[in-house]
Amino acid sequence: MNQNNLIQKDDLVYVYLDEKRKFLVQMVTGMQLQSDLGNVQMDEMIGRPFGSSGKTHLGHAYYCLKPSTADLMFKVKRLTTIVYPKDLGYLILETAIGPGSYVIEIGTGSGALTLVLAKLIAPDGRVFSYDRRQEFIDNARKNVQRAGFSENVDYICCDVAHEGFGSRSVDALFVDVPEPWDIVPHAADVLKGGHHLVSWSPNIEQVKRTVEALKGNGFIRIQVSEITEREMLVRERGVRPRERGITHTAYLIRAQRVLSHQGDKL
Amino acid sequence: MNQNNLIQKDDLVYVYLDEKRKFLVQMVTGMQLQSDLGNVQMDEMIGRPFGSSGKTHLGHAYYCLKPSTADLMFKVKRLTTIVYPKDLGYLILETAIGPGSYVIEIGTGSGALTLVLAKLIAPDGRVFSYDRRQEFIDNARKNVQRAGFSENVDYICCDVAHEGFGSRSVDALFVDVPEPWDIVPHAADVLKGGHHLVSWSPNIEQVKRTVEALKGNGFIRIQVSEITEREMLVRERGVRPRERGITHTAYLIRAQRVLSHQGDKL
Amino acid sequence: MNQNNLIQKDDLVYVYLDEKRKFLVQMVTGMQLQSDLGNVQMDEMIGRPFGSSGKTHLGHAYYCLKPSTADLMFKVKRLTTIVYPKDLGYLILETAIGPGSYVIEIGTGSGALTLVLAKLIAPDGRVFSYDRRQEFIDNARKNVQRAGFSENVDYICCDVAHEGFGSRSVDALFVDVPEPWDIVPHAADVLKGGHHLVSWSPNIEQVKRTVEALKGNGFIRIQVSEITEREMLVRERGVRPRERGITHTAYLIRAQRVLSHQGDKL
Amino acid sequence: MNQNNLIQKDDLVYVYLDEKRKFLVQMVTGMQLQSDLGNVQMDEMIGRPFGSSGKTHLGHAYYCLKPSTADLMFKVKRLTTIVYPKDLGYLILETAIGPGSYVIEIGTGSGALTLVLAKLIAPDGRVFSYDRRQEFIDNARKNVQRAGFSENVDYICCDVAHEGFGSRSVDALFVDVPEPWDIVPHAADVLKGGHHLVSWSPNIEQVKRTVEALKGNGFIRIQVSEITEREMLVRERGVRPRERGITHTAYLIRAQRVLSHQGDKL
Repeated sequence: MNQNNLIQKDDLVYVYLDEKRKFLVQMVTGMQLQSDLGNVQMDEMIGRPFGSSGKTHLGHAYYCLKPSTADLMFKVKRLTTIVYPKDLGYLILETAIGPGSYVIEIGTGSGALTLVLAKLIAPDGRVFSYDRRQEFIDNARKNVQRAGFSENVDYICCDVAHEGFGSRSVDALFVDVPEPWDIVPHAADVLKGGHHLVSWSPNIEQVKRTVEALKGNGFIRIQVSEITEREMLVRERGVRPRERGITHTAYLIRAQRVLSHQGDKL
Repeated sequence: MNQNNLIQKDDLVYVYLDEKRKFLVQMVTGMQLQSDLGNVQMDEMIGRPFGSSGKTHLGHAYYCLKPSTADLMFKVKRLTTIVYPKDLGYLILETAIGPGSYVIEIGTGSGALTLVLAKLIAPDGRVFSYDRRQEFIDNARKNVQRAGFSENVDYICCDVAHEGFGSRSVDALFVDVPEPWDIVPHAADVLKGGHHLVSWSPNIEQVKRTVEALKGNGFIRIQVSEITEREMLVRERGVRPRERGITHTAYLIRAQRVLSHQGDKL
Repeated sequence: MNQNNLIQKDDLVYVYLDEKRKFLVQMVTGMQLQSDLGNVQMDEMIGRPFGSSGKTHLGHAYYCLKPSTADLMFKVKRLTTIVYPKDLGYLILETAIGPGSYVIEIGTGSGALTLVLAKLIAPDGRVFSYDRRQEFIDNARKNVQRAGFSENVDYICCDVAHEGFGSRSVDALFVDVPEPWDIVPHAADVLKGGHHLVSWSPNIEQVKRTVEALKGNGFIRIQVSEITEREMLVRERGVRPRERGITHTAYLIRAQRVLSHQGDKL
Repeated sequence: MNQNNLIQKDDLVYVYLDEKRKFLVQMVTGMQLQSDLGNVQMDEMIGRPFGSSGKTHLGHAYYCLKPSTADLMFKVKRLTTIVYPKDLGYLILETAIGPGSYVIEIGTGSGALTLVLAKLIAPDGRVFSYDRRQEFIDNARKNVQRAGFSENVDYICCDVAHEGFGSRSVDALFVDVPEPWDIVPHAADVLKGGHHLVSWSPNIEQVKRTVEALKGNGFIRIQVSEITEREMLVRERGVRPRERGITHTAYLIRAQRVLSHQGDKL
């Protein structure tokens, strides 16, 4: 971690002009950002502290901010839909993961989840990221690399529903596939006893079928929630919720795997 | 991290009989848990894997689960209200913290937030936890210790509104006090440029005044949200949301601190 | 309608002491209301205007308010759950009913819906209220009578799923039964072409099956919504939503019946 | 009310092709509707029952539906924002109005509320609709006339905040203006004792100030709610809430006016 807080070459910087003009950029020499409020010569910010402001060539202020973890998620190059921070933040706390944890995610998707997990389990943990499609893995790998978290991730391209996860033992399992019930029987092979599986799906039918699979494969304490976020507009002339927005993303499932009295698979 | 997953002396175990009988206990020799479904001799679980099941003396099954981070939060001894996982998970991702981060929280409260932050910034990060009341710090310290995360926490008993935070430089600031606007001017002294302050309050008026203080102290990208959680009941006979529950906890504020072009405080 | 607004014998009056002590009473001679804040001699309010205040024998103020339609609903003697005003108000506007309309409701339940429909279709309309259980009809009849709307209601005790509605022609059909899909085929026999059926159910599976039945019985423009109400606490010391409350009642279905080009049943 | 259900000249008909092509039209001779799915000769539907279907000249089916009350609201010509059915339905039940009631609304706006009130209080009630701007009244009058409810409405163009409502006595008062606190003192002059005022505003500050005005002008049982609607998509391949939509319209206030023990204004 860059404790002295000076922007350096290769750092990810969130360049912010206003709510409509905001860019996540990696610092490279000679870089120029273009917007209708003017261009930004990024070079001149190297060596300045994060948070510093400058002016575009048209005189508009810009700020070099530290990207939040959510910023890193939203700014991946997307080939798939991504999990939302409101959902993922909740799910992370519903597992026991932290620095040093071993975690499986399936599928890799665009890598937004991958990079968050990789960040949280550093420096000694490991993320095993499974996807059936090599093109998703290739794209996700670039997204994670750019965010600076690729050291702790292994990508595995295979069809888990048919081939399983191989021999692993992990502290948590994050399931983001259209048919989670196909994954659940294999989950019981790799998830440590008493630990957490989380899964999310947009449709009720998917939730119901996944819950049934969990019940049939030695999982208990199965719970389903929906998390909704609503922005509040706080202005001089009045405070109110935003009038239009996202009204549904996914239902969130969590469960814990149990064993027999002898510690065997149920 | 206990990679072999066997329950050992001093481990925190979530003993689960059913949704109404669930206990977070620290494994000590000779321990017995009592419930109306029978008693549990915890000794016999030492050396078994997490997830293992047993029977109470009345023949009811129990399970020794790995507590989630949310479980650790909810089971602290409370002298104050605590932040909810739905809110905290979201806020964490709206900052840039992870292993190695330096973080301030104010106030310490019951330590539910303290232990989550301490867990996430391990092994090399640090949590500086401020509270005006020594009794809260004493209780929180015990809660954090029991959860096993006390190594990375410093507690500071002082009145930050009048005395400030002292000389620090942190990656994020978590503000959970009734009058956040008194803290904001001091926040600008210790928060690294471009980094994140988050704050939460139950009332609209608190939000409005905090937002004004943020605007007046060099913070930008100020946003306010509300996160709502609703449990879904997934049963054979029908799926539906739970009929009664929590409808409001807090409004969540996030903001980033900026600097002048010369990197000075604004 | 009592245009001079003086409380008269037999009037329904909402006697309000505070949010915890509120009573819907019918004015009879010699009536006394008892509460822990003192007794109320209702006689003395006869001949005074609605809204007038008095004092209990312990000196606490009480007010004689006009009951809202929602008050009439909530204060029926209940043998069943009732539809909530937030749901019913919406559903009414999703039909075309008003003074003079003919309406079927099934089932009668406790009569909360019956009395609202009877009120809205007066003076020349008619409510046909169906239920399988005579005990529900008997109780509902008393509730509707007490509210003063019994003139426009016919109660029919029969098993519509097997026997149908008989020969009628109505402007709207309100369906509040556990298995609406059994009713839908009969609905098409009595609902005027182009007019509205509304139905509500707590579970997703019920909704799905009802929608399928509607599609198979000549209904189009089928839409499903959920309506949520959250109280706001507006106080000097701060405005915020209430912290706990009702989080789910029912999913609301609406649909319109169509005919062939020749005006025949589809 | 057209009890034989045949479409006649001047009737309002909701012509529905699909969710994107739906029109509220008044039946006139020689009328043709045009859409990208073909044209509709409306003439041929005169004398057929509501609900009847036909084909456009391109062979696409269309249906002649009975417009719901909500349809009438949404299809007014708008010069202003309108109240939503989810909010209005709830508010109507929170008053005591029905056939025969006398009601004030302020402001007239686009007449969406006016026509609903006029419909519900027919045949013997009366709506007094106030607005400061003659252009709004002129537009609303046309909207109400087209919907067939103009007989029971009086429009009054004046500045109520300064001039008051004149001498009236009404059963309910619907307040939809930006500064309701200016109207409240006059409301107490015309609203019958014990009866209901309802008001709605998008911003918290408006709500707070209105509530204070109500408290200071002899209103009790003041309550504030927010109503949220979320559409559910019910499809073969899966049921889920719609992903984007309206997230806020207004906070809803309701209150009842009280009098002294002598029946005087407080």
